[in-house]
Amino acid sequence: MVKNGFFRINSHSGSARSGIIKTDHGTVETPVFMPVATQGSVKALDPHDLKELGARVVLGNAYHLYLRPGDELIHGLGGLHKFMGWDGPILTDSGGFQGFSLKHLRNLHKNGITFRSHIDGSTHTLSPESIMQIQANLGSDIAMPLDVCLPSDATHDSVSDGILTTFDWVQRCKDACRSRNQFLFGIVQGGIFKDLRKESIDQMISLDMPGYSIGGLSVGESKSQLYETAGFTADRLPKNKPRYLMGVGSPEDLVECVARGVDMFDCVLPSRVARNGALYTKKGRFNITSARFKNINDPFDVDCDCYACSKFSAAYIHHLFRAKEYLAYRLATIHNLRFVIRLMEEMRTAIEADCFPVYRKKFWENYRVSNETVRVNEREKWLKSSGITG
Amino acid sequence: MVKNGFFRINSHSGSARSGIIKTDHGTVETPVFMPVATQGSVKALDPHDLKELGARVVLGNAYHLYLRPGDELIHGLGGLHKFMGWDGPILTDSGGFQGFSLKHLRNLHKNGITFRSHIDGSTHTLSPESIMQIQANLGSDIAMPLDVCLPSDATHDSVSDGILTTFDWVQRCKDACRSRNQFLFGIVQGGIFKDLRKESIDQMISLDMPGYSIGGLSVGESKSQLYETAGFTADRLPKNKPRYLMGVGSPEDLVECVARGVDMFDCVLPSRVARNGALYTKKGRFNITSARFKNINDPFDVDCDCYACSKFSAAYIHHLFRAKEYLAYRLATIHNLRFVIRLMEEMRTAIEADCFPVYRKKFWENYRVSNETVRVNEREKWLKSSGITG
Repeated sequence: MVKNGFFRINSHSGSARSGIIKTDHGTVETPVFMPVATQGSVKALDPHDLKELGARVVLGNAYHLYLRPGDELIHGLGGLHKFMGWDGPILTDSGGFQGFSLKHLRNLHKNGITFRSHIDGSTHTLSPESIMQIQANLGSDIAMPLDVCLPSDATHDSVSDGILTTFDWVQRCKDACRSRNQFLFGIVQGGIFKDLRKESIDQMISLDMPGYSIGGLSVGESKSQLYETAGFTADRLPKNKPRYLMGVGSPEDLVECVARGVDMFDCVLPSRVARNGALYTKKGRFNITSARFKNINDPFDVDCDCYACSKFSAAYIHHLFRAKEYLAYRLATIHNLRFVIRLMEEMRTAIEADCFPVYRKKFWENYRVSNETVRVNEREKWLKSSGITG
Repeated sequence: MVKNGFFRINSHSGSARSGIIKTDHGTVETPVFMPVATQGSVKALDPHDLKELGARVVLGNAYHLYLRPGDELIHGLGGLHKFMGWDGPILTDSGGFQGFSLKHLRNLHKNGITFRSHIDGSTHTLSPESIMQIQANLGSDIAMPLDVCLPSDATHDSVSDGILTTFDWVQRCKDACRSRNQFLFGIVQGGIFKDLRKESIDQMISLDMPGYSIGGLSVGESKSQLYETAGFTADRLPKNKPRYLMGVGSPEDLVECVARGVDMFDCVLPSRVARNGALYTKKGRFNITSARFKNINDPFDVDCDCYACSKFSAAYIHHLFRAKEYLAYRLATIHNLRFVIRLMEEMRTAIEADCFPVYRKKFWENYRVSNETVRVNEREKWLKSSGITG
């Protein structure tokens, strides 16, 4: 499939690289951030908003869409693109991550994952074959195989078992893949164990997939472990294929992982924290609900070209949050997604000018990372509260 | 002010009439429906959505904006138009209605209304003079005086007292009005008592206001009482001034009250029921969450030109509601507001062609009114639940 020109690298700057992914629904410049439309909608936005803020590919979730409204129903209505009114590329996640996040509701076994629905408690088994059928029904441009995703404190033995099962499932997904225009990625697991990462990389490379996901990160490990493992893995994956780091997407993580050779990212973080009023700037994250914004007539971020900052004052968005107006969530989401997508655009430009290290240095001179304890607590709270990952 | 060309009638068809209101922020064709932006935002929409769906004037609420974020703050930021990003005309309601809807939180006295804030329980007194100062700070194009709005079961004696107090307050508001470009309406009260309506009309006419509101309706009376009283009142108001029926806005009420000579309407009903999934069509109101829409690939309303119906299937909107996605509320609100605003456009066209009675007859041949018991219960529930009227 690579022979068909699915992916092409344009430039390098250190380990960072820029390129182009070609799909039936258009091309995508990398490195790219993919907003998450878990249930067929990026929360609080419509497809026009997404186009306006520069999104070129969005992510849907096979597990969620299988449960509601049903992949067969979506297929009958013309597929996910038509259903959600998005004519650009779509990547679908398989539901392997829900095998991690919904741990009290699932049972992992050789044939797949048996879930209890977070919606109505009904029991469902997703096998490698069925997850490919679901994604064929959805008609996504890039599909993920079923994989075993384990928490960061999993033992070497259980992670070792996990990569063997993942290898088996990815092979079965590959054999089951029937759609000519859908690209199925491999998924590298192995937790923070380098020997297992290496083993998983070798297994995946042996399958000659058109692209490779780096899974099993952003599941509780520290930032340094995340960067170390992402870099170690990216470095050993084939240079001519796209590398997708799953579930990663704070501004600093995006910069650090692009620096390590990652091409694709998705994450609910920018949109989720936006709905709590936490908005990104070049200097770090600030909460618009803070009293300091109450009578600021300037935009929240004077350097931002998003719709929210172009059209409204910080004081107005502050008021919308205080008054719990729906528009608050839409404007905040537009701002944060535009911020990370512009960050990717700037990084592509820097890579193409071969000055990425300078860009990265400048980013860190300005950006103050949110307190990690706060960040970890937010994530724990969210993982406990629901299986909805949008 | 009428001499300045604030309002001009263009056509008549029976008692129905079409005209134009001129303000510093643009002209408005009547009969007109005004979406309600209680707290400075039409719930779930942005100003671009409003322009797209044909809104030409929106309504803000002085009481709500005084409490949060504060009218002085809005004044300091350049006024309500700039604050909410709406460059068209704005009408502000005074808070007299909240003297009715927040009855457990307020005390009516000769000097005004003393409220306990529904936000933090703090005590505030709105006098005729202070409500004019608030509206001057907001900078609305059309202002409402403070008035006494009583429930439909109020006695003749208390309604009689109410119109006297309202007369006094409207005079005080007129004397306090300092803004050259803000038009202050009179408000006719009198409940369903024709003698009191007549008395209130005569009082208001004696003040020679640039327009007249018909208040004290949509507060629990029956549809026939509403139509009868609105018609009785409109018929006795000066022909050359706009007539604004406050808080009325179901499709059938709009048609029936335009037929009786009303020019302006506002109501939260179309947007509030939209957020519960109840969507208008020419045949009546249907709930998009009903299973019958689960796999309908056509738009919800094939005859509708709104963004939601132009871009998405009924099945998708159904799914968004089931999945509790924010986009559901925005699309549904766009649809219902477009429906009532298109209804006004059609009525204006019919009046200008002098065939309004034919239009009205055709409307009734198609439209099935929602069960009145359901409607009354919804309203009761809402009045109990909060003082937020958006």
